[in-house]
Amino acid sequence: MENGTPVWKFQGDEGLSAASAITVRGILNQVMENLDVEDGRVVVPLGHGDPSAFPCFRTTLVAEDAVVDALRSAKFNCYSSTVGILPARRAIADHLSRDLPYKLSPDDVHMTVGCTQAIEAILTVLARPGANILLPRPGYPYYDARAKHSHLEIRYFDLLPDKGWEVDLKSVEDLADESTVAMVIINPGNPCGSVYSYQHLKKVAETARKLGIMVIVDEVYGHLAFGDTPFVPMGVFGSIAPVLTLGSISKRWIVPGWRLGWLVTNDPNGFLKGTGVLESLKGFLDISPDPVTFIQGAVAHILEKTNDDFFSKIICILRENADICYEKIQEIPCITLPKKPEAGMFVMVKLNLSLLEGIKDDMEFCLKLAKEESVIVLPGIVVGMKNWLRITFAVEPSSLEDGLGRIKAFYERHAK
Amino acid sequence: MENGTPVWKFQGDEGLSAASAITVRGILNQVMENLDVEDGRVVVPLGHGDPSAFPCFRTTLVAEDAVVDALRSAKFNCYSSTVGILPARRAIADHLSRDLPYKLSPDDVHMTVGCTQAIEAILTVLARPGANILLPRPGYPYYDARAKHSHLEIRYFDLLPDKGWEVDLKSVEDLADESTVAMVIINPGNPCGSVYSYQHLKKVAETARKLGIMVIVDEVYGHLAFGDTPFVPMGVFGSIAPVLTLGSISKRWIVPGWRLGWLVTNDPNGFLKGTGVLESLKGFLDISPDPVTFIQGAVAHILEKTNDDFFSKIICILRENADICYEKIQEIPCITLPKKPEAGMFVMVKLNLSLLEGIKDDMEFCLKLAKEESVIVLPGIVVGMKNWLRITFAVEPSSLEDGLGRIKAFYERHAK
Ligand SMILES: Cc1ncc(COP(=O)(O)O)c(C=O)c1O
Ligand SMILES: Cc1ncc(COP(=O)(O)O)c(C=O)c1O
Repeated sequence: MENGTPVWKFQGDEGLSAASAITVRGILNQVMENLDVEDGRVVVPLGHGDPSAFPCFRTTLVAEDAVVDALRSAKFNCYSSTVGILPARRAIADHLSRDLPYKLSPDDVHMTVGCTQAIEAILTVLARPGANILLPRPGYPYYDARAKHSHLEIRYFDLLPDKGWEVDLKSVEDLADESTVAMVIINPGNPCGSVYSYQHLKKVAETARKLGIMVIVDEVYGHLAFGDTPFVPMGVFGSIAPVLTLGSISKRWIVPGWRLGWLVTNDPNGFLKGTGVLESLKGFLDISPDPVTFIQGAVAHILEKTNDDFFSKIICILRENADICYEKIQEIPCITLPKKPEAGMFVMVKLNLSLLEGIKDDMEFCLKLAKEESVIVLPGIVVGMKNWLRITFAVEPSSLEDGLGRIKAFYERHAK
Repeated sequence: MENGTPVWKFQGDEGLSAASAITVRGILNQVMENLDVEDGRVVVPLGHGDPSAFPCFRTTLVAEDAVVDALRSAKFNCYSSTVGILPARRAIADHLSRDLPYKLSPDDVHMTVGCTQAIEAILTVLARPGANILLPRPGYPYYDARAKHSHLEIRYFDLLPDKGWEVDLKSVEDLADESTVAMVIINPGNPCGSVYSYQHLKKVAETARKLGIMVIVDEVYGHLAFGDTPFVPMGVFGSIAPVLTLGSISKRWIVPGWRLGWLVTNDPNGFLKGTGVLESLKGFLDISPDPVTFIQGAVAHILEKTNDDFFSKIICILRENADICYEKIQEIPCITLPKKPEAGMFVMVKLNLSLLEGIKDDMEFCLKLAKEESVIVLPGIVVGMKNWLRITFAVEPSSLEDGLGRIKAFYERHAK
């Protein structure tokens, strides 16, 4: 053995080290580090979209039982096949087909480790030197992190707060060029609490067709709509332009820790044939981790047998919480809500810094709020909107009232 | 809407489409497509390392109960933290520390979606332009697929069949240069059924230190040793060179479908400080799918409470199966076994094509064997050894005898 200190030749990729600086969890970790351990009050977590810890958001026994049964059967301890086991893919195909004008086949479905891996998959597949992708602003920063990691150039189109956060289709057309491969929409919206109308989604599809790009639609909050506009899956317009639908059981069943998602090609006209996208997707999944086999084994039961009562209960809580948000935010002059949320788990509110003393931006607002009031909210900068805030309303109603009350107290203490 | 056929501008990444051509599952799918559906006999799957479907390899109830309890507690429906939940990391640290001369901390442990994701993580972290990595030949092709995907140059060192598949350390030194970042060893071995001695592992660490590279050790078959050589974890030598230990519950508990693995830094001297590897790893995990939270929640119980009887039973079956392999293979002139397997789930046997009529290589052997005898074995080419075969002995003993009997019949029909 050599003596002396060895010199190591390896080093970690710096791009990766920087990756967490742009993810929701990376930033929330920073904000949470600012919590004051001396504050005797419970922390009110209005930062992330995971209500699973709250008793009122506990998942249905149907889902739990389905997983236990699949596990106990010992039939699903094995490795999964690359694209997911057939019963799971068939179940997702049937489930999504109910709301479509055509029928999906199990071959259209790829099981993934949450919607997260579906995002990773499609962004990796589409990345090639020089290509660019159109992302919504505000949006979900995981798309940015993954596009950067794959060296896919990002171009942002705006969502219009005064038009219910609809896509600015004009700006989409202006941004796109010969190297544009896809546009992403998130519907129902994170971070906006919006849900798009049939007409608007149709226009999105038509724009994509005109530009020769695919639509990647993130429907992880699918069906969680509680206002006047019903949820319409983008797949309805798959005959206009190819639509890749990303989803999971994380939000609707409130089990984000179960890590079961899907990537579905909505392509009744076979637009994807010959583009290599399907082959490349298969290759990606071949070299990527799979979702747990017994949870795949449970998903048919979960989708078919979950009682409507469960969904109604969740929708009802979300609607009531949206109302609480709307009312309480009126009482806090330094933040304004463009529109009452109609879907999903979040609202975006605009911060009026001119009403506050000694707070220079959204990040500082969040850090001080964490320290002084033990309330966590997400700085808008993370989702592309400087000096806005993203607030989760998917928490226990009493927590929400408590949290918004503390934000009001914080405002009053810092008001000019 | 425009008329006429639209021209789509996106396309799938071709590198990814090619990825499955070099994975075990990609090749096994090809071999299985050659099965004769008319053959009334059951298929004997000696191709892959997943014995979970065989009754004698059913996992322990302790593990099943632990998962059910964690799920029923409703405490683990939430998202995991980036590196894994603390109780899981602490359990892995304690578990591995038992066999080490120092104590691991939970911070040394990163939970992953099986050992598969641990491999992906470290190869992604180490990839930088111009870097190269040393992989064993024969080896596990997932390393090749992931290194290719990350543009990490691969250099192969040989394992020596006549020396119990030990690493040819001379060739390691010859291959390494200024751009070499790591060497990979798999111990116990896939595909070789070997297990390395304390002395050999120490030499591996010393070589790594001399070269200034890290040792990545894949211990997914850890503790599955049933010959004279006991299993020694590479982490024992972490004070000589930095050792990254990759593992999972897939093989020892026979639950590959549960997708729970780990990446552990064995680095008591802090060699990794300042290299950016830890930061980069954290960044990787921040933008990657997590293992299921409730399975993480169960792992402490699984590790602590699994009865020794369960492990002994599995070891005993593997040992008996290794004996069956050894004896039956003697009766098949066209294949030879350099050494009786001592560990893991596989043996490598050398194909003597000169004894066979009309079979030009290992791939053709496997394809014809599938068609004529409904027996699946893996062509050696996939693991880097042309005209060898990899045979799994982790199957029901009666299946193993049946399969090897059919290989003998196949030989007799095709003998020159
Ligand atoms: C818009 C959006 N997409 C995807 C995800 C990730 O979903 P999953 O838990 O299924 O991975 C989230 C999670 O918050 C999200 O908000
Ligand atoms: C050497 C080796 N490493 C890693 C793996 C993957 O293990 P896991 O199931 O934990 O992802 C396997 C699976 O066969 C293997 O043989």
